[in-house]
Amino acid sequence: MLGEFDFIARHFQPLAGAGSLDLRDDCALLDCPAGEEIALSTDTMVENVHFLPDDPPETLGRKLLRCNLSDLAAMGAKPHAYTLNITVPRDGMHDDAWFGAFSSGLKADQQRFGVTLLGGDTTSTAGPLVLSATVFGRLRKGCALRRNGARSGDSLWVTGTIGDAALGLLVLQGVLCDPTGFLAERYRIPQPRTGLALNGIVSAAMDISDGLVQDCGHMARESRVALEFVASAVPASEAASASGEQWLERRLTGGDDYELLLACPHQNEHALQMACATGNVPVHRIGRVISGSGVRVLAADGSLMRMEKGGWQHF
Amino acid sequence: MLGEFDFIARHFQPLAGAGSLDLRDDCALLDCPAGEEIALSTDTMVENVHFLPDDPPETLGRKLLRCNLSDLAAMGAKPHAYTLNITVPRDGMHDDAWFGAFSSGLKADQQRFGVTLLGGDTTSTAGPLVLSATVFGRLRKGCALRRNGARSGDSLWVTGTIGDAALGLLVLQGVLCDPTGFLAERYRIPQPRTGLALNGIVSAAMDISDGLVQDCGHMARESRVALEFVASAVPASEAASASGEQWLERRLTGGDDYELLLACPHQNEHALQMACATGNVPVHRIGRVISGSGVRVLAADGSLMRMEKGGWQHF
Repeated sequence: MLGEFDFIARHFQPLAGAGSLDLRDDCALLDCPAGEEIALSTDTMVENVHFLPDDPPETLGRKLLRCNLSDLAAMGAKPHAYTLNITVPRDGMHDDAWFGAFSSGLKADQQRFGVTLLGGDTTSTAGPLVLSATVFGRLRKGCALRRNGARSGDSLWVTGTIGDAALGLLVLQGVLCDPTGFLAERYRIPQPRTGLALNGIVSAAMDISDGLVQDCGHMARESRVALEFVASAVPASEAASASGEQWLERRLTGGDDYELLLACPHQNEHALQMACATGNVPVHRIGRVISGSGVRVLAADGSLMRMEKGGWQHF
Repeated sequence: MLGEFDFIARHFQPLAGAGSLDLRDDCALLDCPAGEEIALSTDTMVENVHFLPDDPPETLGRKLLRCNLSDLAAMGAKPHAYTLNITVPRDGMHDDAWFGAFSSGLKADQQRFGVTLLGGDTTSTAGPLVLSATVFGRLRKGCALRRNGARSGDSLWVTGTIGDAALGLLVLQGVLCDPTGFLAERYRIPQPRTGLALNGIVSAAMDISDGLVQDCGHMARESRVALEFVASAVPASEAASASGEQWLERRLTGGDDYELLLACPHQNEHALQMACATGNVPVHRIGRVISGSGVRVLAADGSLMRMEKGGWQHF
C-alpha cells in the first residue's frame, strides 16, 4: 500500500477544487457569496449495511454523494463541494485498482453535479469499509425549503416515480425479475433532483429516502398537519407497474427513492408544474394536506388502506 | 436500543445550535458574515486505531473535536460549529449510558470552545466504533494562516511543550512512569490553541500532530524552504524532562502534540510574543527558516542529529 501522502496525491488531488488548498493544509476554505448561506448534509454508508462488498467501487462514492445531493435538492440549494472520510479495511481488497475505480466514479459525478472535493480523512480499520461524505450547497439567505411549512389546503406532490429502488433491491435479492435492469439501477444509483427552482413556490419539501409513507409522516409531524394521498395516484415506472399490484405496499413504504415530496398552495400549482417542466423532471399530484395529524393512504374507492410497515428505520 | 429518532432527540438535540434546524430537516444551514469565509477540518477516529474500547466515552468526542479545533487554530479561524458521524458496533456495549457519557463530554467542550452541533448521521456496523467530525470556523476573507508561507530568514517557533503526548502513550503502555498523570492526560485530551490572533504576524502556521520533525518537513516542503531547529531549544514540560534525555528523539518525532508550529519574520517577533502572552499561551523560538529543502535537527554543539523515525504515518 502507498503511503498516505502518495495515496491522496494519486486518487484524491485530481478531484480537489477551489478552497481545497490542494488537500495540503490544515483546513479547507469555503466561500459564501454575500446574501447567500450554506446548506450542508452529511451521510455515512457502511459495508454490509448500505452496500455489499462486491458492489462496483465506481458506484459507491456516487451513491454516497447523490444521497447527500438529494438533501440539498430538498432544501433548494445549489451543489458546490464536499468532503469525504474513508475508513478502509486492512484486508488488502481495497487496493490501488479499487481506489482508482472508486475515484473515477466520483469524478464523473463531480462533473455532472458541479461539485469538487474540499477535503477529507483516510483511516484504516479491522472492520468493514465506512464512507462518510458532507456535501455543501448554497442558496439565497432565508429561502431554504423546509419540511415544516405544509399547510391545510395545500396539495401534495412527488417528483419522478416511487418505489423503483425498493423493487430493485428485491430484484437484486432474486425475489423479483426485471429484464430491463431499470429497477436495480434505480436502487444502485439515486438520481437527486437538484436544479429545480422551487423556492417561493412550494410550502414544504423533503427528499423521500425512508419510504413515501414514513416520509409523509415526517412532513406531517414537522408541519403539524395530516397528509392524505391516494395510492393509485402515486406514479409508478413501467417496470414497477409490470411487477404487479401485489408490490404496491412495498413501493409506498420501501426506501431509497430520492425523489422529492412537495406541498404546494393551490395558487402555485401551475408554477410548480412549470418549474418541473423547465428542469425536465416529472411531477405528479398524489393527495392533499389536511388538518389533524399522521398519514392517510386511500384506496381508489376512497377507503383507508392499512400499511403493515411504516417505512425504513435506519438504526 | 432506542429508535433512531428518540436516540437523536435524547443525546444529540441538546447539543444542537443555530442552523441545525433541531436536527430535523434534510440539511443544516451555515451562515457566513460578509467579509468572512469558512475554514473547515474533518477527522475520523477508529476504535483500536485512534482510541481503545475501554477509553472513557466522555473523552472520545472531546478528542475528536479538539483535533479538528487544532486545525482551525492553525488557520487562525474562530470555532463556530461541527457535524458528527457515528458508526456504532452492534455489540450492545454502546448503550444509552455510554452515549449519555459521550454526549456529556461533547457538551462540556461545546461550552469551552464556543461551538454547537449542526448535524450528523448515525449508522450501525459489525466492526469497531468509527467517529468522524467536521468542524467549521470563520475568519476574515483572505487572511487564513497557511503552511506554505515560511521564508528564508524567518525564525521558527512552537507553542506549549512538545512530546508530552508521545510520552503519555508510553506511560499508558506501562513503558514509562509518570506519577503526576500529566503526560497521559496530554495524550488523552489535546489542548487546541484556538483564540490566538496571529493573522498578519506569522508567515506560516500549522498544527503539530504527526510529530515535530515530520510536521517541520511538511512546512518545509509546502514553503519550498529548509527548516532547522536546535533539539535542546524545543520546550519540554517538567514531566517530560523528568523522563530523561533518552526520550528526546521520541519527543521530537512522536505525534499528538496539537501545538502550533510557526514561522515568523524578525520584525514581527515581538508582536508574536505579545499575541501569545495575551492568549496566555507559552511560545518559544526553536530555530530558523533557511533556503534549501528538508529538516535539520541540531544538537547543542551545532552538530547534525540523525533521527531513526521521521514521525507518525497515518495510513
